[in-house]
Amino acid sequence: MSTPDASPSGEDALIARYFKPLATDPGAFNLGDDAAILKPSAEDLVLKTDAVVEGVHFLADDPPETIARKALRRNLSDLAAKGAVPAGFLLTLALRSADDRWLAPFARGLGEDARQYGCPLMGGETVATGGPIMISIAAFGRVPPGKMVRRSGARPGDRIVVTGTIGDAALGLDILRGGAAGAALADDAIGKQMLVGRYRLPEPRNALAKAIRDHASAAMDVSDGLAGDLAKLCAASGASAVVDAKSIPLSPPAAKVLARGAVGIETLISAGDDYEVLCAIPQDGFDGFARAAADAGVSISSIGSVLSGGLSPKFLDAKGGEIPLSRRSYSHF
Amino acid sequence: MSTPDASPSGEDALIARYFKPLATDPGAFNLGDDAAILKPSAEDLVLKTDAVVEGVHFLADDPPETIARKALRRNLSDLAAKGAVPAGFLLTLALRSADDRWLAPFARGLGEDARQYGCPLMGGETVATGGPIMISIAAFGRVPPGKMVRRSGARPGDRIVVTGTIGDAALGLDILRGGAAGAALADDAIGKQMLVGRYRLPEPRNALAKAIRDHASAAMDVSDGLAGDLAKLCAASGASAVVDAKSIPLSPPAAKVLARGAVGIETLISAGDDYEVLCAIPQDGFDGFARAAADAGVSISSIGSVLSGGLSPKFLDAKGGEIPLSRRSYSHF
Repeated sequence: MSTPDASPSGEDALIARYFKPLATDPGAFNLGDDAAILKPSAEDLVLKTDAVVEGVHFLADDPPETIARKALRRNLSDLAAKGAVPAGFLLTLALRSADDRWLAPFARGLGEDARQYGCPLMGGETVATGGPIMISIAAFGRVPPGKMVRRSGARPGDRIVVTGTIGDAALGLDILRGGAAGAALADDAIGKQMLVGRYRLPEPRNALAKAIRDHASAAMDVSDGLAGDLAKLCAASGASAVVDAKSIPLSPPAAKVLARGAVGIETLISAGDDYEVLCAIPQDGFDGFARAAADAGVSISSIGSVLSGGLSPKFLDAKGGEIPLSRRSYSHF
Repeated sequence: MSTPDASPSGEDALIARYFKPLATDPGAFNLGDDAAILKPSAEDLVLKTDAVVEGVHFLADDPPETIARKALRRNLSDLAAKGAVPAGFLLTLALRSADDRWLAPFARGLGEDARQYGCPLMGGETVATGGPIMISIAAFGRVPPGKMVRRSGARPGDRIVVTGTIGDAALGLDILRGGAAGAALADDAIGKQMLVGRYRLPEPRNALAKAIRDHASAAMDVSDGLAGDLAKLCAASGASAVVDAKSIPLSPPAAKVLARGAVGIETLISAGDDYEVLCAIPQDGFDGFARAAADAGVSISSIGSVLSGGLSPKFLDAKGGEIPLSRRSYSHF
C-alpha cells in the first residue's frame, strides 16, 4: 500500500483514508513505501496466511466490521495455537468497487482488532475483482527460539484438551441460512443471536499463548471441524486418540439444539469455524495448564486421551459405541 | 497449508502433490503444520504483499507457468528495489476448481522461480472461489538493520536511473489484445514474441539489490507506470524531477512501435508491469553504481535529475517541451 501525495488515484485515496490509521507500527512507514520492516529480535518469527472469500467463508450480507475482524481473528487463532504473540499483518483486499459504506466499517472493525490484539497493519494492497470479495491476510507472531508448538508432539497418554465450546459457529451459519437449528431455537432469540455471533466473530485464544507454549506437547486451532483437526494432529504426531463425546464442551444453545434432535453431535464436531485451540497436554502438566487457563479467563475441557497406533481418532457415545463420521472436516475441493 | 496423512481431503491432496516439493526450507515443516518459522537474524525483515487477479493482472489464457512466476516476481521486484535479499514467501491461491492441467504447470513455474531466486515457499492456503483466479503472495526479504532503501531519500541533484527497458510489457499486453502494437510489428514476429514475453514474465532485478543498497538514495520498482511511480518517489522525497524522454531506455521492438507511430512515449511511461527498478543515485555514487550494475549484468540508464520543489516530475521531448500526460499510472478504482 502506498499513499503518494502527488496525483492520488482512487486506490491511493482509499488506502490513505481507511488503512493508514491502522498502520501504527513505525516499520509500516504509514503505508508510504513499497514494503514494511520488522525489526530483528532474538525470537523465531511465526508466519501464517489465511484467506476468506465472500459466499464461501462469509455471507455477502454479513456486517463488514465482523468480516474484517473474523478475517484477522482466523490468523490470530493460529498464532495463539502455536504459542506465538502477534507482531503484525499484511492485508490483500480484492473488491468489486470502492464502496465507502462497506469500507468504512470494514476498516473500523479491522483497526479495533489490530489494537485489541496488538497486531498492527504493516502493509497490503487493494485489487479490483469482478468476482467475490476476498480478504487474504498474512500474519506474523513471535515465539522464543524453537518454541513454536507443533502439531506433531502429542504422545500416548497425553490429555486432549479444547478451549471454549465446539459447534456454535456451524449452528450460527445454519440459523443464518434458515436451517434446522433456527427452527429448534424458535423460542430462544438470545440463543440464536449468540450462535450467530459465534459464527461471525470468533474469539481467538491469544491470552492462552504462553500457557500453550509452556504446557502443550502439540496444538492447533480448530478451524475445519474438531474431528478432522484432531485427525490431523494425531497423524502429525504418529498417534491415535479417543474422545468421550459427552465431554465435548457445548454452549447452552448448542446443547439445546442437540437435545431437541435438530442436529447430531457428528455435525457439531465435523463443521468448521470454531477457532478454539485443540491441544495435547501431558498428564503431569494438566493442572498447571488448567491454572494458567483460569488465570487467562479461558475455559478449557479435557475431552479424551492420545493413544498409540495410527488409527483415526474415535469419538465414543455415552454407551461407549463409536460415533460414525461420514466426513470429518471441511475441504474446498 | 497442511498435508495430513489421515483421510486427506481434495484440498490436502492437492497441496501435498503440488506445493510440498516447493517448501524446501526447514522452517516450512513440509507444509505439515499450521504455520512456518523464520529463524531470527540480525537483519531487518522486509515485508511485502502483492496480488494478481485473472482478467485484471493476467489473461485467462496466459500459461499457468508464467502466471505463477509473474505473481512471485512482482514481489521479488519490490524486494530488489528495497535492497533486500529474498527469504521466502506465503501463497494464497483462490481457484474455481482443482484442475491438474492448470495446477501442475503453475506449481512447476512457481518452484522454478523459488529455486532460482532463493525464495522458498513457507506456507499458504488454497480456497475455492466462484470468481476469477487470484494469487496473493506475501514475500519476505532481509536487509542489514536500517538499510532498506526507502522511496523518500531522493535529493536535488541526484540522477534518476532505471534498469532494463520501459514499456515492453504494456506493448506485449496490447499485442495479446489485438491492439495497434501488433499491427505495427506485423513484419516482426520475434519482436512481438519478445514483448509478449516481457508482459508475461518480468525480470526482477534482484542481482542489483546490494548495489541499490550501497548507492541509491531512494528506490522503488516500476510497476504502475514510470511517470506515476516517479511522481510517487518524488512526492515521498519532497522533491521534483525532470526526465529527458529520449534517454528512456526502449527495447528494439518498442522503439520500432514508437517510430512507426502506433503508440506515443506517453503510453509507454504511463503503463504498468515494467518491474524495473527506478532509483535516485547521488552524482558521486553514479560511477560505482554503474560498475556494480555491469558486474551484475543489469543494464541501467540515467534518464534525468531530481529537482527541488514539489511540482510533478516533467518529461521533456527532444525539443525541450513538456510531454502532456493525461494519466500517469494505473489505478484499480
